Amino acid sequence: MQFTRPLAKLIEQFQKFPGVGPKSAQRMAFHMLSLSPEEVNIFADTILEAKEKVRHCSQCFNLSELDPCEICTNAKRDRKLICVVADTRDVIALERTGEYKGLYHVLTGLISPLEGRGPEQLSVKELLGRIGEEDVHEIILAINPTIEGDATVLYLSHLLKPVGITMTRIAFGLPVGSDLEYADDVTLARALEGRREI
Amino acid sequence: MQFTRPLAKLIEQFQKFPGVGPKSAQRMAFHMLSLSPEEVNIFADTILEAKEKVRHCSQCFNLSELDPCEICTNAKRDRKLICVVADTRDVIALERTGEYKGLYHVLTGLISPLEGRGPEQLSVKELLGRIGEEDVHEIILAINPTIEGDATVLYLSHLLKPVGITMTRIAFGLPVGSDLEYADDVTLARALEGRREI
Repeated sequence: MQFTRPLAKLIEQFQKFPGVGPKSAQRMAFHMLSLSPEEVNIFADTILEAKEKVRHCSQCFNLSELDPCEICTNAKRDRKLICVVADTRDVIALERTGEYKGLYHVLTGLISPLEGRGPEQLSVKELLGRIGEEDVHEIILAINPTIEGDATVLYLSHLLKPVGITMTRIAFGLPVGSDLEYADDVTLARALEGRREI
Repeated sequence: MQFTRPLAKLIEQFQKFPGVGPKSAQRMAFHMLSLSPEEVNIFADTILEAKEKVRHCSQCFNLSELDPCEICTNAKRDRKLICVVADTRDVIALERTGEYKGLYHVLTGLISPLEGRGPEQLSVKELLGRIGEEDVHEIILAINPTIEGDATVLYLSHLLKPVGITMTRIAFGLPVGSDLEYADDVTLARALEGRREI
């Protein structure tokens, strides 16, 4: 005996989400059934609406309802700076700091031979196009200090060096408020390596 | 700056699920957008179909597409036995054992004063109705050994004692394959209390 067919199908669907196992999927499906029909309709509509309306900005590949997106069309932004990130979530994180006033370029992923993702699956060609067409002075790579991130940075630096453009990568080191004693070795090594004169 | 509106709405919806925090909700929403339009349509349809087709069996309150459900209409089932459980998931767990051949009654929850859930929100009245109408010989309470479960068992035993029906509760003790040394005190106390002559 299994769950009744439509319920089993719903559980299967939820199980396809990243980080959702069989038990969580069951819990989510039961939660769904406990909602009122109106709430369920709203949920289904929200999914369809998001899929229909949200697209990649054709310039920076940020997820947006508008194309070009609000950042690309914002006249107050410094068009000489492009910050390269892996994902739209990184754009949101950087925007939250309120410190960055340039443009972005979302790669839509990182190079990962293990997952069969090479530069051609990312928006690298379009980044080159933007550098060629616009008067860009600096490319800031705000890319995670992971194996995939480092591989992507290496690839981009080889690719962009001949262009003769200033390329920087955000600093890695001790997080603010943390304790040297408890920092992991790799972070501490990075912090030493990235030391600056005061 | 926030996520574009349709995406933010989708994240909000996912965050309403039990056990889903802001980060998981983001991950799920991004996963949703990474699917093909067909897959997204299938997902939305599955939700609407489950909500439309799955209902409580009017006899035992199990979730089912049919009313009465497959178990209630199964002629091979022993109609003299009713196993009372909190939830449809408990029915599935008991069915998996292949040991139980009676009927079920799903309470659709447990008594919980903290969450404002009293017996009137559960299918207790309908259970009494079934006992009154049918020739039931034994009620088996397969209810979790938690505070809410124990409160519900206490309530049901007071309610059903005057009816003069045999009432049992499933046994609690050491799980099969476990080690006495590592059992927690409460489980061990329950195992002692529930000892049987050999």
